[in-house]
Amino acid sequence: MQQDDLIIVSVDDHVIEPPDLFEKHLPAKYRDIAPKLVHKDDGTDMWQFLHIEVPNVGLNAVAGRPKEEYGLEPTSFDDMRPGCYDVSKRVMDMSANGTLGSLNFPSLPGFAGRLFGALDDKDAAKVLAQAYNDWHIDEWCGYAPDRFIPLAVPLIWDVDALAAEVRRVAKKGCHAITFAENPEPLGLPSLHSDHWDPFWEACSDEGTIVCMHIGSSGKLVMPSIDAPIDVLITLQPMNIVQCAADLIHAPVFRKFPDLNVALSEGGIGWIPYFLERLDHSYHTHKAWTGADFGSKLPSEVFMEHVVLCYINDGVGVKLARDIGVDRITVEIDYPHSDANWPTAPERLMEEFDASDLTDAEINAITYENAMRFFRYDPFPIRPREQCTVGALRAEAAGWDVSPQSRGAAAHREGPVKITDLAAAAKS
Amino acid sequence: MQQDDLIIVSVDDHVIEPPDLFEKHLPAKYRDIAPKLVHKDDGTDMWQFLHIEVPNVGLNAVAGRPKEEYGLEPTSFDDMRPGCYDVSKRVMDMSANGTLGSLNFPSLPGFAGRLFGALDDKDAAKVLAQAYNDWHIDEWCGYAPDRFIPLAVPLIWDVDALAAEVRRVAKKGCHAITFAENPEPLGLPSLHSDHWDPFWEACSDEGTIVCMHIGSSGKLVMPSIDAPIDVLITLQPMNIVQCAADLIHAPVFRKFPDLNVALSEGGIGWIPYFLERLDHSYHTHKAWTGADFGSKLPSEVFMEHVVLCYINDGVGVKLARDIGVDRITVEIDYPHSDANWPTAPERLMEEFDASDLTDAEINAITYENAMRFFRYDPFPIRPREQCTVGALRAEAAGWDVSPQSRGAAAHREGPVKITDLAAAAKS
Repeated sequence: MQQDDLIIVSVDDHVIEPPDLFEKHLPAKYRDIAPKLVHKDDGTDMWQFLHIEVPNVGLNAVAGRPKEEYGLEPTSFDDMRPGCYDVSKRVMDMSANGTLGSLNFPSLPGFAGRLFGALDDKDAAKVLAQAYNDWHIDEWCGYAPDRFIPLAVPLIWDVDALAAEVRRVAKKGCHAITFAENPEPLGLPSLHSDHWDPFWEACSDEGTIVCMHIGSSGKLVMPSIDAPIDVLITLQPMNIVQCAADLIHAPVFRKFPDLNVALSEGGIGWIPYFLERLDHSYHTHKAWTGADFGSKLPSEVFMEHVVLCYINDGVGVKLARDIGVDRITVEIDYPHSDANWPTAPERLMEEFDASDLTDAEINAITYENAMRFFRYDPFPIRPREQCTVGALRAEAAGWDVSPQSRGAAAHREGPVKITDLAAAAKS
Repeated sequence: MQQDDLIIVSVDDHVIEPPDLFEKHLPAKYRDIAPKLVHKDDGTDMWQFLHIEVPNVGLNAVAGRPKEEYGLEPTSFDDMRPGCYDVSKRVMDMSANGTLGSLNFPSLPGFAGRLFGALDDKDAAKVLAQAYNDWHIDEWCGYAPDRFIPLAVPLIWDVDALAAEVRRVAKKGCHAITFAENPEPLGLPSLHSDHWDPFWEACSDEGTIVCMHIGSSGKLVMPSIDAPIDVLITLQPMNIVQCAADLIHAPVFRKFPDLNVALSEGGIGWIPYFLERLDHSYHTHKAWTGADFGSKLPSEVFMEHVVLCYINDGVGVKLARDIGVDRITVEIDYPHSDANWPTAPERLMEEFDASDLTDAEINAITYENAMRFFRYDPFPIRPREQCTVGALRAEAAGWDVSPQSRGAAAHREGPVKITDLAAAAKS
């Protein structure tokens, strides 16, 4: 496999919603209650909705900035690379990174789409969420249907409305929905409850994959209150192991044998250990705990339902065959701080070169699995030979991807702590 | 390597303290306040201390029972295999499992030794903890100095007394101490505080290894309140990754370059992923977080200070050379439910056979590392050729290790939940 021949589909990027988000898809009577972007005196841009202010925390939009400028401070649109919020520029940034397709998680409503549910008027909440999804599907992804995989936000506050929305957006060609890795910290029933069954059923019927992104439970990984933020950053991907263990012991996969769940940004290098531990615990304890996976091992059930996702993971790539190459997908994470941009092809290839994966296995990982699980097929619009890293980068020849300073980071005294993140998110 | 030629030193087993624990080492004036074993009307044995009752939760003493009898119920001494609490029987159980040496964690005072600190009179608390340590070192380990590695309980409520105790027991030949993986949930300063410096300094001076056992922070791993207990059991070892990330970003290893910490029962298969993630986060974020490992990578600092421990871990054994064979040790976990007893040699050998480890590497993992880091040298008492699996099992020929029923488990309705464990521990 040559680097230029890779085809890259990223199942985890992020959109920073543009100010005109609600202009086209919201009925006039709801205009007044929609979130509004406000430029503040301190130079930051902030969404205002009810009593809630949603800042755009710096780490979420740092693509293309020097690492010294990464930080937690709220930012303005001027601080961001336009590819964060302008879809035409986004496509150019994708091409310059050799990326064919991209799934974009929401920023404003949160990974679990909770924001709109803050409205007492749940009809209005539904209308806002549907307007968001229509904007996302028709405007953002619709700009270049060959380049985007649509992803709906969930009406997580009303499971019947949620199930109906899954069916509604499926008709528009959207077969992925973001959800909480654990709804319980959000004040909702856990994955062990049958509360969610109408949702799982709709996803199962419509062939819709459920994306559980790290951090989507809203619970910070914080061993101790005065820990540096590096502790959280280090732990964040693997922390989804709690969701993995919760999910596999919940009844959902037994009830809905066709359902697929993606552990977005969860990494893969820890999976072989986890699967071995899962089976070991089952063998050792099922006689008294009541755990029951029928004729299968829990690791088998897990690998029949879970789609794995990684940004960079040399250990995981070396172990890919043990994990299962037909369930692994890649992510870029643009424009977040862990983003593999603009050198995804180089860094993916380095890891493949250090492994003994065949071309067929590499293709499964970089694009075929994503196309299958997310029901994405750009080839009728864009012939395969125009989808490679080499072809896409040629289209973006001359597009500037060099680091661009957008102002120095705020002066800090001493190391940044996890609590600074909580403070920034609330500011 | 032939199975019979293995030499096995386990750095993680557990003692169930016998009723006469405090008889020999407690000054007369403190007899009345010492914990007392009480046989209850419901047939269980319970330690009573102040207003506190400490049950012996079933899963902690199930070695040799059929798996159907595992459970969370409080137990009595009659429910246990005598090797749990009778050191002469323990040595036979070790020999029958081919185990040369064993490090025994406490049960009654908790992994972090907190129990005695419940006394308002801190002088009395100190006397009780010292009596415990003297009993452990002189009576339990002293019964067969060639077979036990002494492990002190910490006076965790008073860091100066704690440091002094490290120095006192070191003079008695004890160079290991148990401690909390995270002191903060116990209401104490975190690993990031300089509060603990006198303790780290004493351990560093005395060549004493600090053992942080899974669960020692007292914080249960519970993604959701109605999760089956299988979720906790699956997650428990790897949950120590939170301690690992906390510890490496704390100042302790920078301040005390000779200090060693063992992640007891933490497993090893997830370590390669963790180390790669640690370095990746450092490269990506140090420019703004203030993280600073000088001329080294955090993964290098980690592997200079942390001793890794596993019971069964096929994935980890395959990756042992990537992890570092000179920092890996083995555990039996007798008499807990995850114990590799009485078939440790068979199960360890299976994993070695599936790896390409050399005899020298296997010896490092099964005993040489443990002897070095825990300052344990039985060979002057027991010649090396009497220390192998084959020799020890021959000594225990005829010792009955077949599963013995000690009464049916309580009837349960539906799956056991994590909350049942919390309830049992408090009962």
